[in-house]
Amino acid sequence: MMSHYPSSILNLIKNLSKLPGIGEKTAERLTMHLLRMPRKDVEQLSQSMLELKAQIRLCSICFGLSDKDICNICSDGRRDESVICVVEQPGDMVSIEKSGSFKGRYHILQGALSPMDGIGPDNLRIRELITRIEKGKIKEVVLATGTNVEGEATASYLAQRLENYSIQLTRIATGVPIGGDLKYIDQVTLKKAMETRQPV
Amino acid sequence: MMSHYPSSILNLIKNLSKLPGIGEKTAERLTMHLLRMPRKDVEQLSQSMLELKAQIRLCSICFGLSDKDICNICSDGRRDESVICVVEQPGDMVSIEKSGSFKGRYHILQGALSPMDGIGPDNLRIRELITRIEKGKIKEVVLATGTNVEGEATASYLAQRLENYSIQLTRIATGVPIGGDLKYIDQVTLKKAMETRQPV
Repeated sequence: MMSHYPSSILNLIKNLSKLPGIGEKTAERLTMHLLRMPRKDVEQLSQSMLELKAQIRLCSICFGLSDKDICNICSDGRRDESVICVVEQPGDMVSIEKSGSFKGRYHILQGALSPMDGIGPDNLRIRELITRIEKGKIKEVVLATGTNVEGEATASYLAQRLENYSIQLTRIATGVPIGGDLKYIDQVTLKKAMETRQPV
Repeated sequence: MMSHYPSSILNLIKNLSKLPGIGEKTAERLTMHLLRMPRKDVEQLSQSMLELKAQIRLCSICFGLSDKDICNICSDGRRDESVICVVEQPGDMVSIEKSGSFKGRYHILQGALSPMDGIGPDNLRIRELITRIEKGKIKEVVLATGTNVEGEATASYLAQRLENYSIQLTRIATGVPIGGDLKYIDQVTLKKAMETRQPV
């Protein structure tokens, strides 16, 4: 019940409330802040939302976010095109890039297998991954989907689909996170870390 | 360090991060959500921000938020125009309206006295309040500024400025909030509630 505001305020509160993690109270606070902001800054914010929708598309090779037909990474000749890291979402690719640990190319599936949500192999960019592999330049595919149920299922499925290609298939390591206190690590992770222990 | 995104994504993340309570991580999450939203919904959100800035002004009588020269409350003949409730901000007025406890008119000061922040009487809409009182129809002024230091100082200052007008001056009651557990109420509030105890 916010009907004590003029309609253009109610309208913005309603639209902001639709965003994830923004309830009616936060939307009201943001609206009051926007009212106090210089008009130029609000126009800039509004414009940058429209530009986002107008300019961002999926790279036609890796399906990562890009403002060009082929993204910066796929068109970067210095990156190793014989290694493909397969991730679920564009954000996963950004996390790996931030870690600076990978110098190959990516393939973004746009999700993980989840029969419960009706997401099967045909809903992901798996056929396109196989097409890339069939072109013959790929030597290694790193499966970097999540370590939850859906991510593991997707990795298993891909491992099966790709077993007949002469490529090396690898999976990112699971274990105790760096800086982790064993007291606070869940038992499944700890069991897995123990089972896959490495010689020092 | 988010430079792994295309520039229109970085741009929106930067602009969203300027909003209160939205850090870089939240801005990134919101941007990813906007990317997945239908273009029509993003346009609607963007448009409602621009409309807010274009349409909302301060009511020329009470200085509340309005999309007309005179706001809905000031132009509502059913509201008692002999009582004015003085608040600091438009949001305070909305809170009182939601409580349904007041049927008079409002006056929004646009802040509270705060010498530390350089806000003196001339920065608030105090002269306009006095002009309204001098027109002679006002019988009661309810001081509903905050109960913090600035709000109390503002109420005291107004009480002093208005003492020579033949109006009744009142102040909203302070005390233990309804539903409050005495264990968790701060001592200043409790002391005040004890001192101003009422006969049952």
